[in-house]
Amino acid sequence: MMKLSRLLQQSRDASRLHALTFQAGISTARQDLTANERIYAPYCVFKGKAALSVEPVPPTFTKLNSGNVRVERRGIMMLTFMPAIGERKYDYEKRQHFALSATEVGSLISLGPKDSSEFFHDPSMLSSNAGQVRKSLSIKPQADGGGYFVSLSVVNNILRTNERFNVPLTAGEFAVLKTACSFALPHIMGWDRLTAKLPKESVGSPSKANRQEPDLEWAK
Amino acid sequence: MMKLSRLLQQSRDASRLHALTFQAGISTARQDLTANERIYAPYCVFKGKAALSVEPVPPTFTKLNSGNVRVERRGIMMLTFMPAIGERKYDYEKRQHFALSATEVGSLISLGPKDSSEFFHDPSMLSSNAGQVRKSLSIKPQADGGGYFVSLSVVNNILRTNERFNVPLTAGEFAVLKTACSFALPHIMGWDRLTAKLPKESVGSPSKANRQEPDLEWAK
Amino acid sequence: MMKLSRLLQQSRDASRLHALTFQAGISTARQDLTANERIYAPYCVFKGKAALSVEPVPPTFTKLNSGNVRVERRGIMMLTFMPAIGERKYDYEKRQHFALSATEVGSLISLGPKDSSEFFHDPSMLSSNAGQVRKSLSIKPQADGGGYFVSLSVVNNILRTNERFNVPLTAGEFAVLKTACSFALPHIMGWDRLTAKLPKESVGSPSKANRQEPDLEWAK
Amino acid sequence: MMKLSRLLQQSRDASRLHALTFQAGISTARQDLTANERIYAPYCVFKGKAALSVEPVPPTFTKLNSGNVRVERRGIMMLTFMPAIGERKYDYEKRQHFALSATEVGSLISLGPKDSSEFFHDPSMLSSNAGQVRKSLSIKPQADGGGYFVSLSVVNNILRTNERFNVPLTAGEFAVLKTACSFALPHIMGWDRLTAKLPKESVGSPSKANRQEPDLEWAK
Repeated sequence: MMKLSRLLQQSRDASRLHALTFQAGISTARQDLTANERIYAPYCVFKGKAALSVEPVPPTFTKLNSGNVRVERRGIMMLTFMPAIGERKYDYEKRQHFALSATEVGSLISLGPKDSSEFFHDPSMLSSNAGQVRKSLSIKPQADGGGYFVSLSVVNNILRTNERFNVPLTAGEFAVLKTACSFALPHIMGWDRLTAKLPKESVGSPSKANRQEPDLEWAK
Repeated sequence: MMKLSRLLQQSRDASRLHALTFQAGISTARQDLTANERIYAPYCVFKGKAALSVEPVPPTFTKLNSGNVRVERRGIMMLTFMPAIGERKYDYEKRQHFALSATEVGSLISLGPKDSSEFFHDPSMLSSNAGQVRKSLSIKPQADGGGYFVSLSVVNNILRTNERFNVPLTAGEFAVLKTACSFALPHIMGWDRLTAKLPKESVGSPSKANRQEPDLEWAK
Repeated sequence: MMKLSRLLQQSRDASRLHALTFQAGISTARQDLTANERIYAPYCVFKGKAALSVEPVPPTFTKLNSGNVRVERRGIMMLTFMPAIGERKYDYEKRQHFALSATEVGSLISLGPKDSSEFFHDPSMLSSNAGQVRKSLSIKPQADGGGYFVSLSVVNNILRTNERFNVPLTAGEFAVLKTACSFALPHIMGWDRLTAKLPKESVGSPSKANRQEPDLEWAK
Repeated sequence: MMKLSRLLQQSRDASRLHALTFQAGISTARQDLTANERIYAPYCVFKGKAALSVEPVPPTFTKLNSGNVRVERRGIMMLTFMPAIGERKYDYEKRQHFALSATEVGSLISLGPKDSSEFFHDPSMLSSNAGQVRKSLSIKPQADGGGYFVSLSVVNNILRTNERFNVPLTAGEFAVLKTACSFALPHIMGWDRLTAKLPKESVGSPSKANRQEPDLEWAK
């Protein structure tokens, strides 16, 4: 697949950034997620020392023998950090990912104006390298109210590296993050499939005579 | 239908749980709900003494003679509790359900940080066994703020049993519950059908000359 | 069309009510709204002195000569009140409607825990009967916190009638109303059509060389 | 395309306004945005000195060589102001636009009851006229609580003009703005495409044996 090693350069005004190379890079990282056509629409924030890109990754589904469908893998909210290596230049090759689970997204969107939150991931948790790499994501309100500091620390005992990314978010940027994550949460849980898909065939189906709520709660 | 009696064993990290057997079990319980293909995407929380699974059940619709469609049975938010019977083992056979109505979901999502709520159901309410089984669901904030205790008590005078399930939820888990329930509420009410389905044919239809709001309010 | 004059009788547990006759009645009132197939899923609350049913009515659209589509008539949130005329009996013939506009829905969903709101409608405003009928809808918090009183007053100087409907809502019922109205608001405004419908053809269309945001803001 | 120079006259009751000419005008301004069929459903507020129309503009997408789809241009929330030039008459020719980015929408929807916000745009920023035109949008709470003042100032050093539009919004109108903008935000970001479109083909696809979250976070 496509290999991108050039550095990103972008205008000061992130809202006008087309971010082609950045998104193409994410595309590369995603291609082992699903073979299907995908849509790239990350929310990107470019700051002095690092850039942050946020994007939901929907769940995958599996068909059961019964014909029904089950979530195979929950969706996540993917955070991608890139260090700045000059004025408005970011090194895509040095990017680091942090994948928020539904519950971690819940923590983020329930943060009060003075609340902090920190998440710890071990990307090698179930492998022989468990404990060798530690990632922690920290979200802290700024002293002057309104904005937040979002920081990612990656300590890698194998490569003997210690990286840190700091992205200050304005109140508006954090509000986008919270609103967009609230919107995305039911989707990464797969609940949009549960509810939106009310098949035609259920309409007009004969009602069962004694189907009552008590049966539902007293199934056994 | 499939009968599952084996115990569930799952990893400490619930977010990675595929939960096949658990979901398959729910599937069994649901098959008398609708004959249609269904999608399983419960939100599951596994704790020391019990596990809790939450999943919306959409409404069913019926076709009227006029060709219009009416909600036949409101959707619900299904809570399923399973007791722990060992380290990270849960007994699916001992599960208990509690089906929240739209109004009960409204109570849940409007809970303030210090509010408690309790719901009482009699699963045999309209039968000769009325009053023999009492279920109560309690939601209480934890003393240290943030999280909540969710407890189900089932007193069965016929079987002379008295079961209790306690699942402490972190602030993040409860935020998922509230956000996902807020998302699901219009869907279990059937309002997503009301609004999303704006048929093509309404576009370009000739407007009625004097159709004014007063007519609407003064229909009789 | 169908004429319903019999009285409604329903069980104490509104959540189990199928409410066929009630909904069929609403259907009658609605048939001059649109000729298309409709879906009935009102949120109904049955109390001691009156019943309240709430249901969104989507906007209608019109095709312009350009081929584009325009909202012809905004949607509304339809409130229907019926007086109780006995224990759990409601008189559908004596129903009264109150149609909330988008802005009135905005007022409702922004009500703080101690806020009140009152809306005044003159259903004959633009006719020769202007001022003869006055409707006012009042929403007031209950003294003990949590719930609200929803009241409709209809003073008709032509018929020399003065009707009043009082429906106390629990905190949970009012939360359903607010959440469902928040969900429905963009739909009755027609914004779900604006955003959800991103036609395939826009994908892959050649981008215009210098299409920049300034052009958008500086169109004239 | 159509040229509209006549003045708008509309009834006192904005909720009944069909606003054909106003919307047709917006249509003109939009036709260089996309060649596709569009839907017009602006939220309009008509006040004594000016009118304000708010409408989301969805993003555009581009197909990549990989077959995937990428946001080409982010959507915006378009605010259009028109000065009043008599009782209930607004001059469409003197309209001014202000296009809110996703982050500016985030600021708007996170405004607390006593918060103000101001945005500055230079519509000629990247051209030789940079700095010649300055637009500022101000949102301030009214002293008596509840409502807000929305003001647009446009200083044009080339034309030597200085325009100012003031539109007071009631609490209900501002709640509509916030709720509708919260709804629209994920859509102008293109996230509704990311999540809603879960293609059939992903169902039943063979799961990859060792696809684990660590791979996701440790892609490089």
